[in-house]
Amino acid sequence: MAVGKNELPKFNVIDGLRLGVACAGIKKENRKDLVIIEMALGSACAGVFTQNAFCAAPVTICKQNLTNSIAQSSAAYLLINTGNANAGTGEQGMADAQECCRALGQETGVEDVAILPFSTGVIGETLPVEKITKSLSSALNNLSPDQWSSAAEGIMTTDTRPKGAAATVSYAGHTLSFSGISKGAGMIKPNMATMLAFVATDAKLSDELCHSLLTELADLSFNRITIDGDTSTNDSCILIATGSASAPQIEANHPDFPAFKATLKQVLVDLAQAIVRDGEGATKFVTVSVEQAKNKEEALETAYTIAHSPLVKTALFASDPNWGRILAALGRSPIPDFDLSKVAVYLNDVCIVEQGGRSASYREEDGQAVMDQHEILIRVVLGRGGHTETVWTTDLSHEYVTINADYRT
Amino acid sequence: MAVGKNELPKFNVIDGLRLGVACAGIKKENRKDLVIIEMALGSACAGVFTQNAFCAAPVTICKQNLTNSIAQSSAAYLLINTGNANAGTGEQGMADAQECCRALGQETGVEDVAILPFSTGVIGETLPVEKITKSLSSALNNLSPDQWSSAAEGIMTTDTRPKGAAATVSYAGHTLSFSGISKGAGMIKPNMATMLAFVATDAKLSDELCHSLLTELADLSFNRITIDGDTSTNDSCILIATGSASAPQIEANHPDFPAFKATLKQVLVDLAQAIVRDGEGATKFVTVSVEQAKNKEEALETAYTIAHSPLVKTALFASDPNWGRILAALGRSPIPDFDLSKVAVYLNDVCIVEQGGRSASYREEDGQAVMDQHEILIRVVLGRGGHTETVWTTDLSHEYVTINADYRT
Repeated sequence: MAVGKNELPKFNVIDGLRLGVACAGIKKENRKDLVIIEMALGSACAGVFTQNAFCAAPVTICKQNLTNSIAQSSAAYLLINTGNANAGTGEQGMADAQECCRALGQETGVEDVAILPFSTGVIGETLPVEKITKSLSSALNNLSPDQWSSAAEGIMTTDTRPKGAAATVSYAGHTLSFSGISKGAGMIKPNMATMLAFVATDAKLSDELCHSLLTELADLSFNRITIDGDTSTNDSCILIATGSASAPQIEANHPDFPAFKATLKQVLVDLAQAIVRDGEGATKFVTVSVEQAKNKEEALETAYTIAHSPLVKTALFASDPNWGRILAALGRSPIPDFDLSKVAVYLNDVCIVEQGGRSASYREEDGQAVMDQHEILIRVVLGRGGHTETVWTTDLSHEYVTINADYRT
Repeated sequence: MAVGKNELPKFNVIDGLRLGVACAGIKKENRKDLVIIEMALGSACAGVFTQNAFCAAPVTICKQNLTNSIAQSSAAYLLINTGNANAGTGEQGMADAQECCRALGQETGVEDVAILPFSTGVIGETLPVEKITKSLSSALNNLSPDQWSSAAEGIMTTDTRPKGAAATVSYAGHTLSFSGISKGAGMIKPNMATMLAFVATDAKLSDELCHSLLTELADLSFNRITIDGDTSTNDSCILIATGSASAPQIEANHPDFPAFKATLKQVLVDLAQAIVRDGEGATKFVTVSVEQAKNKEEALETAYTIAHSPLVKTALFASDPNWGRILAALGRSPIPDFDLSKVAVYLNDVCIVEQGGRSASYREEDGQAVMDQHEILIRVVLGRGGHTETVWTTDLSHEYVTINADYRT
């Protein structure tokens, strides 16, 4: 099951970037499972990665190769496989990932350090290196700038649908384009190695701005989604700026910069929310907004406490406006000197709690009308300060248990 | 469903303590739902309570009345009802709880401050004061020292079975007795107002030692169980020491004190584990032990991260020895400078992870043999220090979702 719209957007061609897709037979025959993304010389490239201490071999290599920015004396490449996460594989896993990079370097004539590997799939099984290296030429042979849809399919694991986002924005009188794809029903399934996102723009960005924008905006998009609190060994998000557009280099003090940044943020948010909407077993798309917090930390911790509460999540699944569970979750949020008498809670526009207790105006049928919808906003007003944070999550359904209990059997 | 043994123990009579049970019709007719526990003048009494900021009215009153110790110019009483938690009820809830105390005070001729109220059941509904006050005489009329089993039934909410523990220990040549009861399938259901435990001994304890022992040992028992991370508005644990035994007053420097303390701890651990074994939807009883941690905090946080992981819990439900999920949970535990190469993980005696990766000796069938059992030990050896902590939890089953999604419908 999945919540909300199902169509891929009309992707924009990003000059300087080509995508190639192949069926390497890693998991199943005749299934797209190998994607190569080529970026032209001069592109800026930045990445953010999982914080999980057990990060996978490809993540370690990506981080190394991106230490400054990607080394480019020619084109550079992303090499992505599904079906196997190459995680929990120790030194063999590192050697395998390096061998895949070396093979692609030989095929394309670039140095290994200009290649970033990504893997997603089952944890703990050896990477099928030969299947990957044998299919490199097939993927390289169909490199094309308009294969975004095919690539969106090629990075899927247990996702029920491909995920993409696209946008344009005007900058200094020129049109700039964005395209991006993501995968990660497996967000809730570390075994399937979780979330990957690849976003490209034809804007010209310095390495520093590319990195700082991605870091800031990934925190407001991919770091604001949660399905069950479990994080993966392989999460990676990459931003490539080819600089092929005729617009001047993006500068943070340009009057059009805010619009550029907002557009990039929306692309990342769309890709992140698409992962939640396709969360395994998801029947609801839930926005948890915590307002009037003293600072970012308490706003986020409160939002996550509610978003991770199995009792709140099962109530959402049941379409039950069970305000007691939201209050109980709120009550165990790590807020110092919590004055409950100032708290208000809303389901969409319906006030269910005010002054720390059930709202006098609240009628169960009003709460029920909100809970019957597929997209729900839980808004918590703390009355402690001026900070607001928002996270997105799903309900906890029977299908979640079924999928995660039956996965390996 | 519930895991493990189902019988109540043979309770010990605790001289100086009597229990009375009545059917007040709070939720259903002819169901035991009102329990009064009377302690004789001179008893020591201590309590520990929920940390949830939204604590219920009776918890607030209990804390007030226990500020120093319970005020006794005569007997003192615990007044416990099920069927209604009197939580989220605001000022009305406080007034209602006080009225019940006042009524019991009038019936028994003791001051209100010598009465501790406890409520467990649905959150957010007004306490049916009249039903309770009308049934006080019925409960008082059958006060008796050997009603532990009946009282264990009288405090149940959605528990599938009553819970009790009993023990004796020798102290200075005299036998001391313990009896205790608990409830809390609702641990995983704050709506049902969760965990209550009442433990009594005929030992003579100073107020200070009674309080410090309960605080220390509740932390090692009730604060070590978790079903879904949600805490309740009404959690309460009470220790009463009537001092009626012929043994001298308990002193912390007496050679028999360690045995006394260990016995009391075991009673509390038995009562706490009984709650986990009866956790809603539980098909497994899981011990998570984290060894060689640098300190208590990182040991506990690591244990809870594993115990709360929905992916680990669904794997337990599926009897799937999915070591990747345990590693992934471990990897997101908040441990600074985590050196994975020192980590080992065992399922019972089977080493599944060593030096941070899948153990070379591990065979899937060995892991499967452990996971097929109903009682499972997940042992994590961090290799960072000398601290060990243990928590107890359950799996995450379809029945958990069913119970918590269908609860109010």
